[in-house]
Amino acid sequence: MQQQISVITLGVEDLARSRRFYERGFEWTSIFENEEIIFFQMNGFVLGLWLKTSLEADAGTRPATGGGAFTMAHNVPERSDVQRVMGRLSRAGGTITRAPDQPPQGGFRGYVADPDGHSWEIAWNPAWPIDENGHVTFGL
Amino acid sequence: MQQQISVITLGVEDLARSRRFYERGFEWTSIFENEEIIFFQMNGFVLGLWLKTSLEADAGTRPATGGGAFTMAHNVPERSDVQRVMGRLSRAGGTITRAPDQPPQGGFRGYVADPDGHSWEIAWNPAWPIDENGHVTFGL
Repeated sequence: MQQQISVITLGVEDLARSRRFYERGFEWTSIFENEEIIFFQMNGFVLGLWLKTSLEADAGTRPATGGGAFTMAHNVPERSDVQRVMGRLSRAGGTITRAPDQPPQGGFRGYVADPDGHSWEIAWNPAWPIDENGHVTFGL
Repeated sequence: MQQQISVITLGVEDLARSRRFYERGFEWTSIFENEEIIFFQMNGFVLGLWLKTSLEADAGTRPATGGGAFTMAHNVPERSDVQRVMGRLSRAGGTITRAPDQPPQGGFRGYVADPDGHSWEIAWNPAWPIDENGHVTFGL
């Protein structure tokens, strides 16, 4: 399995406040923005700032990390890989916090917490290409 | 400034338990391991599993994310960049949680929390090369 993290999603309270921090503080430029999420194309993966309420609703639970809501995503090449990888992670000591299903934006995904409660989304997202080096590119 | 995250470090309670999850669950191979940390070379950055107590000691505080200790790192090309970037992040709404100093392994780093308490380490680490695309490679 590729050693790649596709997306890091930080749950935020206030998009404007976060945009100021990331765009003025880090001087980064977003690649996409709507009323609930901002994406940045990073070095081989995508960083998302998503309203915490939406992230929590998507994860089907308050993320186990508590105060600072946060999840990593590992994207897989095929829809059928989602269930298979989640099963393997579960057998390896993870806890399935959301069984896989289709989110509103399409694709297929579920959530697994690692032994310390760090949240991983396992996702099939055909719109976001992954190259042979595991570098993930934002797509629509 | 490069749109890059150099390292994602997850605080863990039990390295053996975490190794099982990441090596058997994700089928990833580590690139370095000692008695307190395991590194994986990822797609353009490095993933670290570090004993939570060590991560908290390094960050000089309990990470603001609570239960699941976690920090991201943004590495900069020059030692003098650390203070400059931290100042800019502070002016952009961040909170400096550890003023920059030299960690035991060398280099120079400080910590800033974003407006939601997500922890960022701003680090100068000359041993870990960053290419022109912002892809970061583990080094010793």
